[in-house]
Amino acid sequence: MDKQAVRKDLERILDARRVLMEPEDLVSFRNDAYPYRAQPDAAVMVTTVEEIQNLVRYAEKHEIPLVPRAAATDLAGACAPVTGGIVVDLKLMDKILEIDKGNLTATVECGVVNMTLRQAVEAIGLYYPPDPASYTVSTLGGNVATRAGGPGCVKYGTTEDYLRGLEAVVGGGEVISSGGKTAKYSSGYDLHHLFAGSEGTLGFITKCTFKLIPKPETKKTMLAIFKTIDDAANAVSAIIARGITPVTLELIDIVTAQCVEAWKPCGLPTDKDGILLIEVDGDAERVEKEAKQIEEVCKEMGAESFETAQTQAEAETLMAGRRSAFAAFAQQYPTVVVEDITVPRTMIPEVVRRCRESLEKYQLVGTVMGHAGDGNMHPNIMCDINNHEEMVRVEACLAEMAKHGLELGGTVSGEHGIGIAKSRYFPWEHSESTRRIMMGIKDVFDPKGIFNPTKIFVEGGELV
Amino acid sequence: MDKQAVRKDLERILDARRVLMEPEDLVSFRNDAYPYRAQPDAAVMVTTVEEIQNLVRYAEKHEIPLVPRAAATDLAGACAPVTGGIVVDLKLMDKILEIDKGNLTATVECGVVNMTLRQAVEAIGLYYPPDPASYTVSTLGGNVATRAGGPGCVKYGTTEDYLRGLEAVVGGGEVISSGGKTAKYSSGYDLHHLFAGSEGTLGFITKCTFKLIPKPETKKTMLAIFKTIDDAANAVSAIIARGITPVTLELIDIVTAQCVEAWKPCGLPTDKDGILLIEVDGDAERVEKEAKQIEEVCKEMGAESFETAQTQAEAETLMAGRRSAFAAFAQQYPTVVVEDITVPRTMIPEVVRRCRESLEKYQLVGTVMGHAGDGNMHPNIMCDINNHEEMVRVEACLAEMAKHGLELGGTVSGEHGIGIAKSRYFPWEHSESTRRIMMGIKDVFDPKGIFNPTKIFVEGGELV
Repeated sequence: MDKQAVRKDLERILDARRVLMEPEDLVSFRNDAYPYRAQPDAAVMVTTVEEIQNLVRYAEKHEIPLVPRAAATDLAGACAPVTGGIVVDLKLMDKILEIDKGNLTATVECGVVNMTLRQAVEAIGLYYPPDPASYTVSTLGGNVATRAGGPGCVKYGTTEDYLRGLEAVVGGGEVISSGGKTAKYSSGYDLHHLFAGSEGTLGFITKCTFKLIPKPETKKTMLAIFKTIDDAANAVSAIIARGITPVTLELIDIVTAQCVEAWKPCGLPTDKDGILLIEVDGDAERVEKEAKQIEEVCKEMGAESFETAQTQAEAETLMAGRRSAFAAFAQQYPTVVVEDITVPRTMIPEVVRRCRESLEKYQLVGTVMGHAGDGNMHPNIMCDINNHEEMVRVEACLAEMAKHGLELGGTVSGEHGIGIAKSRYFPWEHSESTRRIMMGIKDVFDPKGIFNPTKIFVEGGELV
Repeated sequence: MDKQAVRKDLERILDARRVLMEPEDLVSFRNDAYPYRAQPDAAVMVTTVEEIQNLVRYAEKHEIPLVPRAAATDLAGACAPVTGGIVVDLKLMDKILEIDKGNLTATVECGVVNMTLRQAVEAIGLYYPPDPASYTVSTLGGNVATRAGGPGCVKYGTTEDYLRGLEAVVGGGEVISSGGKTAKYSSGYDLHHLFAGSEGTLGFITKCTFKLIPKPETKKTMLAIFKTIDDAANAVSAIIARGITPVTLELIDIVTAQCVEAWKPCGLPTDKDGILLIEVDGDAERVEKEAKQIEEVCKEMGAESFETAQTQAEAETLMAGRRSAFAAFAQQYPTVVVEDITVPRTMIPEVVRRCRESLEKYQLVGTVMGHAGDGNMHPNIMCDINNHEEMVRVEACLAEMAKHGLELGGTVSGEHGIGIAKSRYFPWEHSESTRRIMMGIKDVFDPKGIFNPTKIFVEGGELV
């Protein structure tokens, strides 16, 4: 790659101020929230569909990888430019194009921050439920590309459940679209859900249309404290089995509580290993009823205490505390690696037990916490990427946890995607025939193989 | 095609009693509920995945089209063997494999009838919402293949919203799978939603896993009667705009009411042109509250009367009457052709007006009714396929209605699929780039082009 020639070419496609090629300018484009770094050849900031089209045509001609990125909160390394190439920053495509109150839809450019949309729709009495922990910074295009979930998904489902349609730039720089504003749609293949979870490997998502719902009238946030994590995990299954659907049903263990309280105190006890953070919403009577039912189940399952947030501020502090967990770990340990295994909900107690055993077996500091209510656990391992001997144990432990997830009827990723962090487990979950079909689909969208290569389908990405 | 050789080959793959090749045995395999007939060369009934695999390998070798079929209630002609070949009947693959109460999932073979699953899960307090009008006979594999909706989709969404995973036989006779029992899933491309709406063009769906929900506590069925269809259509928009989400919000016009009452009387007035059939469900308080709000809105919008079904039997009779509409038309007219345009919900009054104008313009007997609450209208045209002059007007009217749907920001199909009935409108909705990607995807699953050829992407299927 002739650097000067590339710079010249890129500056023909884009405003020169949005083309970065000096090593010092590229430092922050080497990685996302997964601790794997690689040096890109360039980073560019795009502002229009046409710029992306021209960039794709240029990159295809010269066989240069294009790695999409916005907030780069990805936890599976999908934004790491593993084989170099151009990192394409989409953050500037950040316009909310329409909020249609009558039809309960919102159409946005890919770089709109999740929270920005939430606030805009809440201001007019509507609600956009998907709430990844990163929602204050992560973008909706990225949320779609990873099928992002969040604590509120127990009741409301994930990003893909709200995706009504999208526009994308694919191979040849062509623009395609799928779906739209209608509540129903059965006209040809569902390309928009194919882009959900595609992690940049099929092209650039440029515009998305989402379903909105009326804003729930009221909400209640509760904290149930158990003697052991086992008791808390059993209570999760019991609540679901009772036919109650809380918005949020988060399992928090002692290490998580300690880290969060050390960094962003929100009122979690630091001497208890089995905490459930629970939210219910809806109209007032329903909220009262469900909160009471949940309290009953928790007490039957051995809760030592059950508290309800008395003010909205108190509730928000608790939820913000939970959401800060990853950042809180990162404050205290040089490296944090997050698993994302998801199992059928009845398997939560067993998967928690097995993951804890694995942490112990490999003598690692870690937590087993997460969105227990929808079976999505985040075992986190705290480590130091510069400690080679430790990282060997980390890799072995992560692989063992992935196996636990699969053995219990689950998947290696519930909401983070595969990226490079889980690509080596991918063949454990999907047969050769299934993977061949997926790779065939990638070839249709990306005949030159330039869209985020090495992600999902290529093994690698180990941290040692 | 050497008929005797094919028979011998098929009898090696399948029990001879499940291979039909005599013209008299093939009569009922020529069409589905769309009035287009074509003669297949054979029809076979399969019972196992292995039989399908062998059949696919055989058909690929000899380049014989395979046309999937079960209840054949398809309204877009997807089951018609347009270019001959083998019709593959999947009705015998009818086992419910698992209902997992703890995880709220059901796994079924493709040929399980929708109602069979509904009854099985309702018996244990669970609920499977998607309810196409054909639900007493149509199969779940077919429901997935067309993204079937139904009257209950306003609140609950369509088949694809409940699809958690599936298994399919694709090109080469290979078995692939996608998704599973977990509530969240972000591991590679979403192949199961790609099969939703694929109409047999990507391979054979053999097994599906669906999400279930707790059975709603109670339900209320109401009938609001307006002076004009315009008033009724405006009331639909007003109800949705008020933030109320009924389960069902069906618009019934005078012709529909008259046909239904003539065949399966259910208590609809036969002298009124604007009837709304409305259902709400949930816990008792919520149902009361929503029913009251809906009554208020309907009266504000000029309802002449508003009645509530007093018993469950009365409610069921009303819903059965609505569901029988298509059959009621078919009793009275030689041919019925059903449109399936779907628009953003605020466009309902306008699309109703335009479709009525089109019926008048082409001097056709027809109805404009359907799932108004989710923007999905079924303008039905009553005609006689043997009356050439009339059918020319029918075709022109259908095309005009498809344009109305698209001009108002909608789609040519909300829940029936494209099949052959709408393939000539398909290029009006999707750009060449988008269609090229879709056809490229088909090639990946079906390199030999044997899976339900001529559907979706090939123009044709006109009734004259």
